[in-house]
Amino acid sequence: MTDPAVLIAEMGARARRAAITLARLGSERKSDGLRAAAAAIREDEAAILAANADDLARGAGLGAAMLDRLRLDPARLAAIVAAVETVAALDDPVGAEIDRRVRPNGLVLARVRVPIGVIGIVYESRPNVTVDAAALCVMSGNAAILRGGSEAGASSRALHAAFVRGLAAAGLPVDAVQLVPTADRAAVGAMLGAAGIIDLVVPRGGKGLVARVQAEARVPVLAHLDGINHVYVDRSADPAMAEAVVVDAKMRRTGVCGAMETLLVDSAYPASPALLGKLAAAGCALRGDAAAMTLAPGPMVPAGEEDWDTEYLDAVCSVAIVAGVEQAIAHISRHGSRHTDAIIAADERVAERFLAEVDSAIVLWNASTQFADGGEFGLGAEIGIATGRLHARGPVAVEGLTTYKWVGRGAGQVRG
Amino acid sequence: MTDPAVLIAEMGARARRAAITLARLGSERKSDGLRAAAAAIREDEAAILAANADDLARGAGLGAAMLDRLRLDPARLAAIVAAVETVAALDDPVGAEIDRRVRPNGLVLARVRVPIGVIGIVYESRPNVTVDAAALCVMSGNAAILRGGSEAGASSRALHAAFVRGLAAAGLPVDAVQLVPTADRAAVGAMLGAAGIIDLVVPRGGKGLVARVQAEARVPVLAHLDGINHVYVDRSADPAMAEAVVVDAKMRRTGVCGAMETLLVDSAYPASPALLGKLAAAGCALRGDAAAMTLAPGPMVPAGEEDWDTEYLDAVCSVAIVAGVEQAIAHISRHGSRHTDAIIAADERVAERFLAEVDSAIVLWNASTQFADGGEFGLGAEIGIATGRLHARGPVAVEGLTTYKWVGRGAGQVRG
Repeated sequence: MTDPAVLIAEMGARARRAAITLARLGSERKSDGLRAAAAAIREDEAAILAANADDLARGAGLGAAMLDRLRLDPARLAAIVAAVETVAALDDPVGAEIDRRVRPNGLVLARVRVPIGVIGIVYESRPNVTVDAAALCVMSGNAAILRGGSEAGASSRALHAAFVRGLAAAGLPVDAVQLVPTADRAAVGAMLGAAGIIDLVVPRGGKGLVARVQAEARVPVLAHLDGINHVYVDRSADPAMAEAVVVDAKMRRTGVCGAMETLLVDSAYPASPALLGKLAAAGCALRGDAAAMTLAPGPMVPAGEEDWDTEYLDAVCSVAIVAGVEQAIAHISRHGSRHTDAIIAADERVAERFLAEVDSAIVLWNASTQFADGGEFGLGAEIGIATGRLHARGPVAVEGLTTYKWVGRGAGQVRG
Repeated sequence: MTDPAVLIAEMGARARRAAITLARLGSERKSDGLRAAAAAIREDEAAILAANADDLARGAGLGAAMLDRLRLDPARLAAIVAAVETVAALDDPVGAEIDRRVRPNGLVLARVRVPIGVIGIVYESRPNVTVDAAALCVMSGNAAILRGGSEAGASSRALHAAFVRGLAAAGLPVDAVQLVPTADRAAVGAMLGAAGIIDLVVPRGGKGLVARVQAEARVPVLAHLDGINHVYVDRSADPAMAEAVVVDAKMRRTGVCGAMETLLVDSAYPASPALLGKLAAAGCALRGDAAAMTLAPGPMVPAGEEDWDTEYLDAVCSVAIVAGVEQAIAHISRHGSRHTDAIIAADERVAERFLAEVDSAIVLWNASTQFADGGEFGLGAEIGIATGRLHARGPVAVEGLTTYKWVGRGAGQVRG
């Protein structure tokens, strides 16, 4: 077997050459390449579904949730193809001027968006990540090195083969999107250590994967580990709005990173029992602090200290009663994961204080935390949601996959 | 002695509280704090110069260059004070909206600049870094943890004491700027490992320091290791302009990271001997490839393969003759350090190709590489120059010390 570090260095060198080509392509060429990739996936439908059936057969012992993530069918494949076409239609950030200034000596300085270069994607069993990540990288002018989970190996290979055949048909470099050809876990380690070869790693998957990537990486990482998201219901909140938003934030989908995990209710909010009743009636198990226990109209379990730091990703919610917005902000500062936090309030002054002082990637006033999503934000797609503080925060799409360079145009200026 | 990790965690916790306060201060409060810090340094002139005299006496065995970097005098101290006042007058990026969009459901989404949080600065013997870095961090709403070299220990302590006395007089938190109180090198390791405590580390100093920080850091780093900068003189260049820019790029100051280290000359450029003659006449030793050797009017040493990868930081220049812009770009791609590269050309098409294809933080047309400087770029100052690809590239000043958050304002929207 090839040394994983050598393998990644070789793939990285090919990716770098492809990235240089991609960086110089206009938007139309990249869009055309993606549309050709989408068409090739459509053509290969039978082969891709057969490969997926192989993965499912090999994975018969896996859990039901894992098998569901792994499964492709014609509708899911159509959604994958549609996502590529959506990305192909996005505005291309590359080449845009961020700003321009003329210095007193006449030097004209502009900052211009350029691709990052080579992006590594490390993911688990969802075959669609192969295609989503590849499309976002290509549209933003970056080369991608993809390392998917072995459970989805046949599906990923079939999708990748179609994708790059499409790119090639449109005259784009096939090395723009490469799939690591080994299930050896050391290949992930080699990617994480590939400083100077891979410019950015994006992990897509469960907390175990993200934690490993964050702990081991010697290259920059865009990721979020947790989504311990809060909704704070202020005394000034409209009860009907509070109930609708809280139920949506928790229950629309409980397994997404934007789901509410802790509800904070102002002690002066007059309709707490109804709010907690609505959440319970929607099927949510409640774990409350002492004050919440006295307000719940139905069953509620006492919350332990660990509940405030728990991402349930399930129909479970911790509930704390707080003495106003300041205590809510303090609770979020102590227990939150800086992902998405919301306030429901009619009082604008209170809401603006929350928006200013809660230090999360996304802060919302009178809207559900479940909007934490690149598509919902109008970005067309997302390669992930970042809770780090550098480069990009929140949903990351094509603009987040670019950087900038300074371009100066002079007439012979010397510093002299 | 305190465990360095515990020390940094304690300093980090105080810095975080100060950062939260700073993040909420308006521009005027931060500017006032910096003006008060500048005034306090001015008041303490005698004490600061006495502390510096102690450092110089202790460092009597150090080299002349190191002693010069360490030395303060009334003029240098006045320059330090003036730099703080310049930073105090900068536009405050915090709170600015980067963009705003209204979603079809009515949700109004804005991206708003916010401070990064806690910045660690690791530097060597220049006492002015204590003050420059502190001022840039405070103006951008960040708390700073400073770790200077032990050679400048007394000077840094005296400058820091004055700075925070000024901050406190203006009502800013003294923990906004903290100086690591130990010369123990393990404190640097603790800063580099302080993920979640320190949000960003900026090393300021020689290549050894930067390389150590880049190799060990578990937190993001903004830095440049090398400035292997090129000037390419195209066949279309005006000879008088080429000569003026090349001599300035190499010889204005040879020890700065923006100095030219390699001159690339188009084989079709008609005035090569005169160009090389001007550089030699300015006092620069030349090391050329075989073609350059035949063109040099005076002494030239043959360049070895390592010369193309060498940052001389001295009155030495490697010279290669290339067959046009494409070969120049290829040479820079292979040997450059992605810092600053320039083309001298009258042909706009050639120049624009160079600007587009050279993948460096700063690319210049008809201007000296010595402009690679935050002040020259109109940023008012710089905390450093970054050659990494994420977050910020080139000179980094107050805007580069901020990040953004997404702020959404709704009317009860649910995802449903």
